[in-house]
Amino acid sequence: MSDPRAYLEDALPRFRSELFEFLRIPSVSADSEHDADTRRAAGWLRERMEEAGLAAEVVDTARHPVVLGEWRGAGPGAPTVLIYGHYDVQPPDPVGLWTSPAFEPEIRDGRIYARGSADDKGQLYMHLKAIEAHLQSHGALPANVILLAEGEEEIGSPNLVPFVREYRERLAADAVVISDSAMFAPGQPSILFSLRGLAYFEIRVRGAVSDLHSGSYGGAVANPGNALASIVASLHHADGRVAIEGFYDDVLAWDAEIRDQIRGLPFDEGGFLDAVGAPELAGEAGYSTLERLWIRPTCDVNGLLSGYTGEGAKTVLPSAAMAKVSCRLVPEQTPERVAELMRSHVERHAPAGVSVEVVELHGGRPWRSNVDGQLLAAASRCLERSFGAAPVLVGEGGSIPIVVDFEEILEAPALLIGFALPGANMHAPDEWFPVENFEKGIEALTYLYDELAG
Amino acid sequence: MSDPRAYLEDALPRFRSELFEFLRIPSVSADSEHDADTRRAAGWLRERMEEAGLAAEVVDTARHPVVLGEWRGAGPGAPTVLIYGHYDVQPPDPVGLWTSPAFEPEIRDGRIYARGSADDKGQLYMHLKAIEAHLQSHGALPANVILLAEGEEEIGSPNLVPFVREYRERLAADAVVISDSAMFAPGQPSILFSLRGLAYFEIRVRGAVSDLHSGSYGGAVANPGNALASIVASLHHADGRVAIEGFYDDVLAWDAEIRDQIRGLPFDEGGFLDAVGAPELAGEAGYSTLERLWIRPTCDVNGLLSGYTGEGAKTVLPSAAMAKVSCRLVPEQTPERVAELMRSHVERHAPAGVSVEVVELHGGRPWRSNVDGQLLAAASRCLERSFGAAPVLVGEGGSIPIVVDFEEILEAPALLIGFALPGANMHAPDEWFPVENFEKGIEALTYLYDELAG
Repeated sequence: MSDPRAYLEDALPRFRSELFEFLRIPSVSADSEHDADTRRAAGWLRERMEEAGLAAEVVDTARHPVVLGEWRGAGPGAPTVLIYGHYDVQPPDPVGLWTSPAFEPEIRDGRIYARGSADDKGQLYMHLKAIEAHLQSHGALPANVILLAEGEEEIGSPNLVPFVREYRERLAADAVVISDSAMFAPGQPSILFSLRGLAYFEIRVRGAVSDLHSGSYGGAVANPGNALASIVASLHHADGRVAIEGFYDDVLAWDAEIRDQIRGLPFDEGGFLDAVGAPELAGEAGYSTLERLWIRPTCDVNGLLSGYTGEGAKTVLPSAAMAKVSCRLVPEQTPERVAELMRSHVERHAPAGVSVEVVELHGGRPWRSNVDGQLLAAASRCLERSFGAAPVLVGEGGSIPIVVDFEEILEAPALLIGFALPGANMHAPDEWFPVENFEKGIEALTYLYDELAG
Repeated sequence: MSDPRAYLEDALPRFRSELFEFLRIPSVSADSEHDADTRRAAGWLRERMEEAGLAAEVVDTARHPVVLGEWRGAGPGAPTVLIYGHYDVQPPDPVGLWTSPAFEPEIRDGRIYARGSADDKGQLYMHLKAIEAHLQSHGALPANVILLAEGEEEIGSPNLVPFVREYRERLAADAVVISDSAMFAPGQPSILFSLRGLAYFEIRVRGAVSDLHSGSYGGAVANPGNALASIVASLHHADGRVAIEGFYDDVLAWDAEIRDQIRGLPFDEGGFLDAVGAPELAGEAGYSTLERLWIRPTCDVNGLLSGYTGEGAKTVLPSAAMAKVSCRLVPEQTPERVAELMRSHVERHAPAGVSVEVVELHGGRPWRSNVDGQLLAAASRCLERSFGAAPVLVGEGGSIPIVVDFEEILEAPALLIGFALPGANMHAPDEWFPVENFEKGIEALTYLYDELAG
């Protein structure tokens, strides 16, 4: 019997090589050619859970299995923590842009380069190792633990909500802990206070039954390309505000504390602009870059297609035009209400001579933290002990729709603490995760159980 | 020696089978795999010119040859007529949509179905047969004749203007006659009073250096798709007028006579809408459909492309967006001036956070008829004699840029009389030309020489 921290010091070199085994399995959930690999990753994870001291099983779903590990030794009087992560990864494409192969992990400049190192195998594995540090050093945890790892996060988690509903009683917990995001900056641990949601549409405009000659018909027949442009342009005011009628009605006005804290963060605006490479930053008038990313909703074109798009000139009057447009939502907007507003806006702004259809492709609710002061304080202490700096509260512009589902179905607050760093290339070539955060993160998560029980 | 009309009556069956030979040669100028066919078509045409009684030669250019036939027997005191046409054709694609194969001419319901039947082999051939009717019946024409057939019209006539400049003295003529367009309606011969020109652009918008995640960056980085939509939308007012500053400054206000004549034409608005298949017709406020097509300029999207255009949802913030936009021009607009106006309009309307580039892809000047009353009267008489109806003056929404070049280089007016019918599928499957117009047209063109000399 030793203490978890001493255990970690001995075990860290093994953890790193073991993580590399995990990262070498190309568990690309989107690609059915990798189905065997995805299943292999699930099996690998189950074995590691059992080695750590959890009772673990691979549970089949309609597509990729869930891996479920449990330790109930703290007893019914102790708190129960549900940890959620995913063992599937994004496709490695474009493969040619990786410095080292996506599934051959390599450390360069203190970073672990591999697909899944940050999103989310690396962070999921850290949780498992923190549990192992307790169970293998002094044989117990101060809390009951459920570790739920899905294999479909990168394809929209189609089977997870049904699974959580079905296993609702077994998954009952006092808190859900998720590490699938990034810290604000190196050395600066962070806790998420919000996630944006999503309402994704395809706007389809149709004019003539077939493409026409722009000379013989142009001027007398409405052009779906022009019509689509005027519809998309009508979605914004000149000052960057979204112009969909009623769009801001449900937007939460965050209290001064949160806005002050966001303003107080040492955000490197110049570095952000350099990384983006645009001529300048732009967005909704009256808000800072971080506010625009975290607490303000958006309406962005994701794709446009009409007529002739090859080289040179073709004098076609297109019969159709299509825009993919999605809104990032903030509390308390809902995808359903935004879809209604979008439909009626588009109907109102559709020019004469064309027909317009709005198709809803995808929706996810925004989230705001429901963590109470006690849990927040416990999480803050464990992060500060390990990283030597108190965590800051941060927002996240992207969406993790399952967070809201967990909270609703399990009636427990979610605590989101991520350890990746900005620019981690989570869905791009050269995904990386810092070795320092890998080690300090495991340490912080090890303290988490003591803090929760304390 | 007989008279030309009697000659025609005997020869018409032979003309039809001879035309079929011509139509069977797949002289697709755009497709280098058909280069031998295109050259074969030129040789075939030269032989027919010589049989008709012209001195003919095939003149090489950088790509497809020009076929030049001449008869100078009327002497220096008589007028000289230059006839222009083209022996190349559009590709037959999509091949599967033809009822009978594109290069196997077939008569159905009084129509000759074949690629090139209307555009322009059929109409070029009619001119040759009218000349033959004179030269082979009474051995002479009342005017000197030059027949110029190019093989590059369908690829933008890249070598024709240099050819006309180089052969300028040899091509000197009192009038240029072109039959490469359509009559207003069946039984209604027509003479063109105008052609629209063209100014074709690609508008390129760039934001970030690479595509970004719409969650992590959306709202704080300008979206090129949204920016492009606002630029394209800014090109029109809500009432359909083009909003480019200064766009209408050079637009000719046609006199009341022309506008009255356009209004007096028995245009079948319902039939036009049915053929187009759009929910309703739409265009510039204050003008009829024919005015919108013939005497008003346009600004049409020909293509749009940005971001993700496949199935379903991808949450990408695109790094770039592109629109192909072209203006149909009317007298006295010029592509050069419209390009200047477009550039400064786009610069003025480019939103913050993106860079914008306007690339000129193609330009062609509009044309208005310069035919004097005498030539117009002569053309009208020959058409009325053959078709039994006086011709109407019509505009054409499309462009034939070479017409303006002919007039400028040769300092001679162009007379445009076409014999195809609306809906001839000139660049589409099932191109057709009416047998009746083939025969009556040859007759009319035969009279033309008498009328010109008389």
